[in-house]
Amino acid sequence: MRIPILKLYDYLLISIQVELDDQTVLQFQEDVLNKIHQEGSRGVVIDLTSVEMVDSYIAKVLGDVVDMSKLMGAKVVLTGIQPSVAITLIDMGITLEDVATALDLEQGLEKLQRELEG
Amino acid sequence: MRIPILKLYDYLLISIQVELDDQTVLQFQEDVLNKIHQEGSRGVVIDLTSVEMVDSYIAKVLGDVVDMSKLMGAKVVLTGIQPSVAITLIDMGITLEDVATALDLEQGLEKLQRELEG
Repeated sequence: MRIPILKLYDYLLISIQVELDDQTVLQFQEDVLNKIHQEGSRGVVIDLTSVEMVDSYIAKVLGDVVDMSKLMGAKVVLTGIQPSVAITLIDMGITLEDVATALDLEQGLEKLQRELEG
Repeated sequence: MRIPILKLYDYLLISIQVELDDQTVLQFQEDVLNKIHQEGSRGVVIDLTSVEMVDSYIAKVLGDVVDMSKLMGAKVVLTGIQPSVAITLIDMGITLEDVATALDLEQGLEKLQRELEG
């Protein structure tokens, strides 16, 4: 199954509402990059509100999506990271240092708009 | 599998990117109504750009979602109906007369904003 990607003006909106396994997250990576290319998107919000668990591989792939999108010219904001996910990431030593984050989809979009237009 | 529903301010955004079967569309109906209740949404955009086929049952359930949402106080706009889907619907005698439609997600959102705020 593939994670739906919504195009809204210059942005892509994605809400991950399935448990991520290795294959899903790789397919997701490919789909996001293709969609950025196809739509000429300048920003991407990936909402993780419904994700309750990530392992180190999934965290790496998500981090890669951010870096790859940046190479292509699109800024990614991760939103809605749950306490349990934040705990797991830090425990694993993954700080996602250069990754923009926000509380929810709305604040993620506003962050993108500020950074890209302001 | 469930169709993700994104909340953006007063609206819900949904892009259906799987083939709809009877069970999926019923689950979808329940999820949309619950989400409207939970978030107090005033409008819903359901984007059908990726849907290439509907049968009479799915068309009926989608029409029901529109009517049920209206009862709950939320306006629904269907967007991105493909030529093949439009042909099938009209051939089946389903005109979705009272249903608001628009070309794509952006125009659907603008339609909602105009009608709810203007």
